[in-house]
Amino acid sequence: MVFWLKRRRPRAEAPRLRPRVAATELARVDFTELVPDPLPYLGQAASLQLAFFESLAKAVATSPDLVAKEGLSVASGEALAKHHALIEELRRADAEPAEYLAMFQAATDHFRQLTSGADWHELLLGIHLTSGMLDDFFLRLSDGLPVELGRRVRGILAERQGAPVLEHLLTQAIASEPGLADRLALWGRSLVGDTLLVARKALEAAEPEARHGEDVEPVFTELIAEHTRRMDALGLTA
Amino acid sequence: MVFWLKRRRPRAEAPRLRPRVAATELARVDFTELVPDPLPYLGQAASLQLAFFESLAKAVATSPDLVAKEGLSVASGEALAKHHALIEELRRADAEPAEYLAMFQAATDHFRQLTSGADWHELLLGIHLTSGMLDDFFLRLSDGLPVELGRRVRGILAERQGAPVLEHLLTQAIASEPGLADRLALWGRSLVGDTLLVARKALEAAEPEARHGEDVEPVFTELIAEHTRRMDALGLTA
Repeated sequence: MVFWLKRRRPRAEAPRLRPRVAATELARVDFTELVPDPLPYLGQAASLQLAFFESLAKAVATSPDLVAKEGLSVASGEALAKHHALIEELRRADAEPAEYLAMFQAATDHFRQLTSGADWHELLLGIHLTSGMLDDFFLRLSDGLPVELGRRVRGILAERQGAPVLEHLLTQAIASEPGLADRLALWGRSLVGDTLLVARKALEAAEPEARHGEDVEPVFTELIAEHTRRMDALGLTA
Repeated sequence: MVFWLKRRRPRAEAPRLRPRVAATELARVDFTELVPDPLPYLGQAASLQLAFFESLAKAVATSPDLVAKEGLSVASGEALAKHHALIEELRRADAEPAEYLAMFQAATDHFRQLTSGADWHELLLGIHLTSGMLDDFFLRLSDGLPVELGRRVRGILAERQGAPVLEHLLTQAIASEPGLADRLALWGRSLVGDTLLVARKALEAAEPEARHGEDVEPVFTELIAEHTRRMDALGLTA
């Protein structure tokens, strides 16, 4: 579905189509070697920010109190601003935004539905964890973009005012509702797989052998480490 | 429920508690004589912008195509930006935003539900017509605010990039779907009453006799004239 990454420097010395098992080999395949095709990169990133916006707007509309509503509306505005800034980069490159959004719409919609949860707290945790992982992912991938574009994209994705809002609301809820922590810990763990699939789809065309999971492990290891840190911050067992 | 307007210059020469029937008397009671209490004014205006944002975000999420989604997301961002700017004015006045939003939350939520329609097109028309009327209303009322605040509020509410987006999407839909015009014309007419009630609630405490409908007629006449113009622009019979 998503075929837009290539390796920065194909290395003829290494066999490309078989698993690498040595730890040093594994460690060498990191984000700096991945070169995203700019337009689909922007399209997928913009598509995901729109999904985060839609989920956050749903969280605003179903918010049980006004202070939470207010904080979430700020987070929602931030995701929307990221979406619009990424769309603006597509326009700047003379691309038709709708075309590049369309490439990812079905997958993004499916992902949003899978991660929206059964109630308001699960919705919030779903947004917090998946946007955390995927913002990290796209931020790191931006190192492989053309220099000026990469710089602007990092400026766009670096905004993280929404994350502390979500963390605060979740921490409050977990502290005041017995049993919520266990349920959310389970929910948080279940989100990892779907989120990594979104990231993996972006990578696999660049590295066909990566489908077997060997090559891009370091990338995912970093994403999972940050996921664990986010879960820890909430007092949830990752 | 909403008690925050007073007349700018109480006129002792005129009987305050009886209907004025002369046309010249009617014409004299206009927006420039209404003095909103700033904090509740900001609270109600912010509450309404948040409702428009929520409705627009719903329109984004349920949009049948990506170009519409994109345009609506811009309109949605504009309503949210207005909301946040009005909230910022409450903070600037050392008020607690949640307190002033809470004063209007139930009424605004009820209004949003009443005007959200049975499908996507009715949702769009509901937003277009009600936000058109109420943005006009609050823009005009801002003349009665303290000078500097009024100037800033006009800057906030004057943004209208969303309106042409809604008008364009509705015009397209009406042109391509036979029968839609008749249904939307009916829906558009039914929205006027609920919208005027929102405006009237803001006025009635200022002018108790206005409950009988005589005093603030010129205000509503203007709002209805602009509503009619919006309906006309869509080819709908008002």
